[in-house]
Amino acid sequence: MQGVDPAWLPDEAFRPIGTRRTLIRGSGPLVDTVRGEVARACARFGGAVVQDDPDLVLELTGDDAGEGFTYGRRDGCTTVTATGARGLLYGLFHVVRLGETAFLEEAELEEHRPELALRMLDHWDNVAVHPVMGQVERGYAGGSLFWEDGRARGDLERVRAYGRLLAACGINAVAVNNVNVHAAEARLLTDRLEEVADIAGALRPYGIRTHLSVTFAAPVVLGGLGTADPLDAEVRAWWADATARVCSRIPDFGGFVVKADSEGQPGPFAYGRSHADGANMLAAALAPHGGTVHWRAFVYDHHQDWRDRTTDRARAAYDHFVPLDGEFADNAVLQVKHGPMDFQVREPVSPLIGAMPGTRLAVELQVTQEYTGQQRHVCWLGPMWSEVLRFGIAEGSSVGASARGGLVAVSNVGDDPFWTGHPLAQANLYTFGRLAWEPGADPYEVLDDWIRLSYGPGPAAGLRSILDGSWRTYEKYTAPLGVGFMVQPGHHYGPGVDGYEYSPWGTYHFADRDGVGVDRSVASGTGFAGQYAKPWAEVYESPETCPDELLLFFHHVSYGHMLKSGKTVIQHIYDTHFEGVVEVEAAREVWASLAQLVDPARHARVTERFEEQLRSAREWRDQVNSYFFRKSGVPDARGWVIY
Amino acid sequence: MQGVDPAWLPDEAFRPIGTRRTLIRGSGPLVDTVRGEVARACARFGGAVVQDDPDLVLELTGDDAGEGFTYGRRDGCTTVTATGARGLLYGLFHVVRLGETAFLEEAELEEHRPELALRMLDHWDNVAVHPVMGQVERGYAGGSLFWEDGRARGDLERVRAYGRLLAACGINAVAVNNVNVHAAEARLLTDRLEEVADIAGALRPYGIRTHLSVTFAAPVVLGGLGTADPLDAEVRAWWADATARVCSRIPDFGGFVVKADSEGQPGPFAYGRSHADGANMLAAALAPHGGTVHWRAFVYDHHQDWRDRTTDRARAAYDHFVPLDGEFADNAVLQVKHGPMDFQVREPVSPLIGAMPGTRLAVELQVTQEYTGQQRHVCWLGPMWSEVLRFGIAEGSSVGASARGGLVAVSNVGDDPFWTGHPLAQANLYTFGRLAWEPGADPYEVLDDWIRLSYGPGPAAGLRSILDGSWRTYEKYTAPLGVGFMVQPGHHYGPGVDGYEYSPWGTYHFADRDGVGVDRSVASGTGFAGQYAKPWAEVYESPETCPDELLLFFHHVSYGHMLKSGKTVIQHIYDTHFEGVVEVEAAREVWASLAQLVDPARHARVTERFEEQLRSAREWRDQVNSYFFRKSGVPDARGWVIY
Repeated sequence: MQGVDPAWLPDEAFRPIGTRRTLIRGSGPLVDTVRGEVARACARFGGAVVQDDPDLVLELTGDDAGEGFTYGRRDGCTTVTATGARGLLYGLFHVVRLGETAFLEEAELEEHRPELALRMLDHWDNVAVHPVMGQVERGYAGGSLFWEDGRARGDLERVRAYGRLLAACGINAVAVNNVNVHAAEARLLTDRLEEVADIAGALRPYGIRTHLSVTFAAPVVLGGLGTADPLDAEVRAWWADATARVCSRIPDFGGFVVKADSEGQPGPFAYGRSHADGANMLAAALAPHGGTVHWRAFVYDHHQDWRDRTTDRARAAYDHFVPLDGEFADNAVLQVKHGPMDFQVREPVSPLIGAMPGTRLAVELQVTQEYTGQQRHVCWLGPMWSEVLRFGIAEGSSVGASARGGLVAVSNVGDDPFWTGHPLAQANLYTFGRLAWEPGADPYEVLDDWIRLSYGPGPAAGLRSILDGSWRTYEKYTAPLGVGFMVQPGHHYGPGVDGYEYSPWGTYHFADRDGVGVDRSVASGTGFAGQYAKPWAEVYESPETCPDELLLFFHHVSYGHMLKSGKTVIQHIYDTHFEGVVEVEAAREVWASLAQLVDPARHARVTERFEEQLRSAREWRDQVNSYFFRKSGVPDARGWVIY
Repeated sequence: MQGVDPAWLPDEAFRPIGTRRTLIRGSGPLVDTVRGEVARACARFGGAVVQDDPDLVLELTGDDAGEGFTYGRRDGCTTVTATGARGLLYGLFHVVRLGETAFLEEAELEEHRPELALRMLDHWDNVAVHPVMGQVERGYAGGSLFWEDGRARGDLERVRAYGRLLAACGINAVAVNNVNVHAAEARLLTDRLEEVADIAGALRPYGIRTHLSVTFAAPVVLGGLGTADPLDAEVRAWWADATARVCSRIPDFGGFVVKADSEGQPGPFAYGRSHADGANMLAAALAPHGGTVHWRAFVYDHHQDWRDRTTDRARAAYDHFVPLDGEFADNAVLQVKHGPMDFQVREPVSPLIGAMPGTRLAVELQVTQEYTGQQRHVCWLGPMWSEVLRFGIAEGSSVGASARGGLVAVSNVGDDPFWTGHPLAQANLYTFGRLAWEPGADPYEVLDDWIRLSYGPGPAAGLRSILDGSWRTYEKYTAPLGVGFMVQPGHHYGPGVDGYEYSPWGTYHFADRDGVGVDRSVASGTGFAGQYAKPWAEVYESPETCPDELLLFFHHVSYGHMLKSGKTVIQHIYDTHFEGVVEVEAAREVWASLAQLVDPARHARVTERFEEQLRSAREWRDQVNSYFFRKSGVPDARGWVIY
């Protein structure tokens, strides 16, 4: 698409196919998409769509809903077969990803199929510009792809191009509006449905199903009913009717996303009903149409009293939802943030995951970098997500395996020409899609794929070195040892060590002149550690066994406490903050050295972002270090300059 | 006026005149105003405007511009005579203020005249709603009286009623738009002049001259010139023309207010010119028309590095302006904030005042309660202002006497039905006007006047007890010992002890585990104390002689430092924060006891504000105390609960 960064689908990526002869068997809209992709590549590079003597066969052998495909190469011919049209589409992008290898190396037949059926992006896009949150809540990539100043943006070509990128990394679902559903957005469900249908139509050719965030109060605010009680017959009928209308207009409609009783949004508590009651009502409305309700588990007290050290926000999701295990309908998915707090640079895995075996859980990640540099800092989150997904949360079960309801992420995309503000933040979107397909995948291999596709071989080594440790670098110069939330209130950018310390949000570090951290042990703290299954409950319970990187999340320790690394907590704080800045400086140098190997527009944008990242990293370093030096009085042992 | 609180001019206040026979001699618009006031009172209460046998004579004996009047009562007749029409108007309101006394007690002839010729309110009202600052910057009383959503509000009856209130407390000038002049506001000078003229027309009957805040860049942004250099002939001609047009449309136009080279506003520095050059250019444009330029001295580095302890924002105004003493034109007034920082609840007097004997200085106060509770807290500022105005800043000269250019305040008024949001905040506006007329007046007597006029005798004792100590109460539960700026960034409401500690604004307290405060001594600090004349330079230089209430403004001391009060700094912090809350609780009780003695609408509004004040005061108390307890580790000696 003109004027928009090609991301991981530059024309060059289609050269291997575009110079070959491809035979395509099958019919239907998605096969048409496949045929169109191949034909376009051939038109550019001189190959052809043929009926015989192919280098590549793409064959649809059935008409099921499967997403898998079989790939192989024998006797000079590469084959992709699939029993469902989506599988064929994914097979095509698999060949694109392999590049020349797909036509040079023999390969035994291998089955590919996604481990998770739902791989979804939630857009926190507002239709009407919100007076505080703007067009996109926590958006750092310009405006919305879908909405602008209260109206549909109407650029369906861009939406289609977006769907194409998503399909190429395995994503199959998009929720098109913010989970905080305000007045204008509520009406997407009813009289503004056509705007959603247009978007769904543009995403459909790439196998993306459209979802809608709805307000639990819709029967009242849209339907004029006197209640939204989920057990009220009239309310249920209203939802059934509204849902039927949506699904008749959007036959492949994915379903609803609901944030209820959370940060001020309405929910079933107002009617004395449980969250299972609420979710099941919507599930019943969706069931006849094959849709799913995604019910978010982000329920906690956001009017907490900071003086009260017994209440612990980290406990909230578990306390609210575990008692409801087994009560949710089959097409209700409980959507759980990966950590117990809110997308900090370091959190333990949420103990809720693995504690609800009778419930379909989806795990929610945040691709948009709310707390990880807001797409002004390089921070590739692949290793963090991979750690989460591989984490053995329950006996014999990883987080990835527990996510039977799928993997969901908050999108980092906007109408920015580079899609994601920071061009290197595209890597997060791509990695998310690939990990959703295969939670156990090696994130560094995924990163290499992204680099090769997006930038070619020239700058690959440099890009790898900039990105692969960037999450740990970000962690180093920001909030140490799992403590979290040392950010400026509201917008969450930049350091504010006490920014949330006396707030109602339940996000404290309790630093005093002697020590820092939150005691979440069973023995002497909030008891949160006890929400975990073994062995984690025991590991986290004691400062002696708790991993260094989560120490301050689980324990309040003295500044002189000795870490497993052999450093004291305070010296760890000083050292990591300096090291983090040094690492940013080094990454910026590497980037500068790639000037001749990278498209100038991309290079200029990233260069500009590195200036800001370095300025901000130094600010983080000096504020955090000064804060803890002033409080602890412990001099640095290494000769760093602390103000 | 219907639906609007009568403030200090309820009908009842006109009963003494309205039941009498009044003879009015003289002619002209202001005499018409006087006649209208008297006639209206008589129509209500049965008196009359008469030609003979008067109880009261109001007589204009000349046509000068004087504002004084002579008052007396002899042989059963009260007389007010004035040589200028404004004087007659002020004499009328003097009689209103005296009430029955004016008709019952004989009085020798006494001269009244304002000590300061200019008594002005600056409105920080935006024409177009600012995305961050809203319709009124630092406004806590609803929208603007003058502007709404980019247009003139058009309610000239309300503007006239406002002018009437101002005249009744002695104010004679109003600047109708924010000193931060954005795009829409800039055009008030040129193609939107009619909107200003309409407002001027509504204020004129009460002797109020209208002023306009202008942008220094006007010749560029409005005139299309390539420069705004104040020594450029074309620029000077542009200003002369623009000013002539304004003054031909508004013959009594007061002049311009300019914030230049301050917090991002354009100014003469861009052209290598001095602030005297800038001010004198505008003064030259205004001189033929009798206008004055008010040039603000609020010039400092707002991109300061918090790591740099040698730069001191408190020094900035003095450092910038004292070298220019004697260079400003006669009709240029240098407008200086009363303290060296920014309207904190406690600051020393700005050393600039008294250090520029060759310059007409105006002293700027802040009636709008930006840092003093934002009209959600009761905080009557009369005692603070009185301390400032009576302060002997230079040999034989008080601040009030140094303010030859007048007294200016940022208005606290909006389109709120109570004018000021918090009904009791009206007392600040009234007190400001009276102190501008007579800087040495006893503020408590002024307060009693306000209470008697506004509320009558019933609740007077209660109101006195609520208001008279409210500033010191507010000081107690907020920022201690002159340290300032422990507020939430941006909106400045509520506690944020470290809110500005690592910011670029130059507003720090440097609290660490051992002590707190800013060393501004000459011997070891920033040298700010040396900007004062004797004896203050010596008094402030040493912690031993520095007054307790300013100790942390001038010195960094240990938590165990013994105050003159006999308490340590830390125990003072603990105690005052608890005492402050107790005082708010007591004031709320008093207010509750006045329910039957106060108009129900006023009572309800103040009751609601007290709830918020108490909640907020407790938050201040607990956050400040927890902060310093965590940092110092010093236990409270009194048994308070500290979290």
